[in-house]
Amino acid sequence: MKNNSSHQKISVAVDVLLFTIEDDKLKIVLVKRKEKPFKGSFALPGVALRESETLKEAAERSVRERTGLKNIFLEQLYTFGELERDPRSRTVSVTYYALTDPGKLDASGADDGVSLISVDEILKGDPELAFDHRGIIEYGRNRLGGKVNYSDIAFEFVPEEFTLPQLQRVYEILLGENLYKANFRKMISPLVEETGNMLTGMAHRPSKLYRRKEV
Amino acid sequence: MKNNSSHQKISVAVDVLLFTIEDDKLKIVLVKRKEKPFKGSFALPGVALRESETLKEAAERSVRERTGLKNIFLEQLYTFGELERDPRSRTVSVTYYALTDPGKLDASGADDGVSLISVDEILKGDPELAFDHRGIIEYGRNRLGGKVNYSDIAFEFVPEEFTLPQLQRVYEILLGENLYKANFRKMISPLVEETGNMLTGMAHRPSKLYRRKEV
Repeated sequence: MKNNSSHQKISVAVDVLLFTIEDDKLKIVLVKRKEKPFKGSFALPGVALRESETLKEAAERSVRERTGLKNIFLEQLYTFGELERDPRSRTVSVTYYALTDPGKLDASGADDGVSLISVDEILKGDPELAFDHRGIIEYGRNRLGGKVNYSDIAFEFVPEEFTLPQLQRVYEILLGENLYKANFRKMISPLVEETGNMLTGMAHRPSKLYRRKEV
Repeated sequence: MKNNSSHQKISVAVDVLLFTIEDDKLKIVLVKRKEKPFKGSFALPGVALRESETLKEAAERSVRERTGLKNIFLEQLYTFGELERDPRSRTVSVTYYALTDPGKLDASGADDGVSLISVDEILKGDPELAFDHRGIIEYGRNRLGGKVNYSDIAFEFVPEEFTLPQLQRVYEILLGENLYKANFRKMISPLVEETGNMLTGMAHRPSKLYRRKEV
């Protein structure tokens, strides 16, 4: 590793993809930019990395400053370094993704200018996004879909106790396709157990509540 | 994304994990450092990112400058940003991994000071490594093992035409465990097809040659 740091004029940003499911849709937290460039456009919440913090600490700070959320599950996604991605200066963006439920986000006291936007709508081109953030969201959305089948990621989007239809709907939203109930139940049964409680008081008949099985 | 680039004193390095299999062992390309810090220790081949190149171009340059190899499969692994990882200055390292076979490496005209070292030996602590590169190699080795079962990565380590025992041995080395021949063949049969050629002239009886099936 050669060191030409004195000659480098490269900035390091840390941007966060904070996904949630609301109204049966996969959504992401975006922030309306108050400054140039891309003033008035939506962007991922992000910060310039400080010398005194790790990458993950910068990601946590970014989430905390914009949404008030603390202690959320954060995982590194990818690092983007195309030459023209920021018109101000060469900027490498290390991205993290995080998952939360909309209840926590409502309660945390988010900034003005913070919005939950449908990922499908973003990928169709609406609204306009700053920098290369649409491409970053597309990458993150694909990764999320890929992770559904070989990780516990779907459980991050449901409460601790959930019904099987709730969990199936999360799988369907993350995969972007409908599943047959019987197939889903067969696939999911080794991973969950009944809590003994019922979900009641809704328009439907009471439903059994489940939790993730400890492995 | 706030921009405090003028206040950042953070360097960006790109380091490459170039894996190969030689003598039935997973090995990695390391470079003996000729300068401080860690003079005389082994390190991953790496470069300081230039303003004029993308991250992947920097990774390709790093491989080319040290080993002479061009056009190899390179994929981003992870970005490391612990505070004290480089004693000279705060340095974020974007890492890529690459796979090659030792024949190509021999033929490409590598630098003096470039060595192929057993990954198992490195993880046991021998030889001493510069920076946090042992930890990076451990991360990369685990990722490689995880990829075996849901990607085509094993095929990168065999010639275009290979015998099934050759391919099985690659799986075993990447997974770090022995496999039953019958189970392996059942698992692999949808992915390969006979070429009609035989591997002959060795101490064993002739073996059928296979190739990866086009999907």
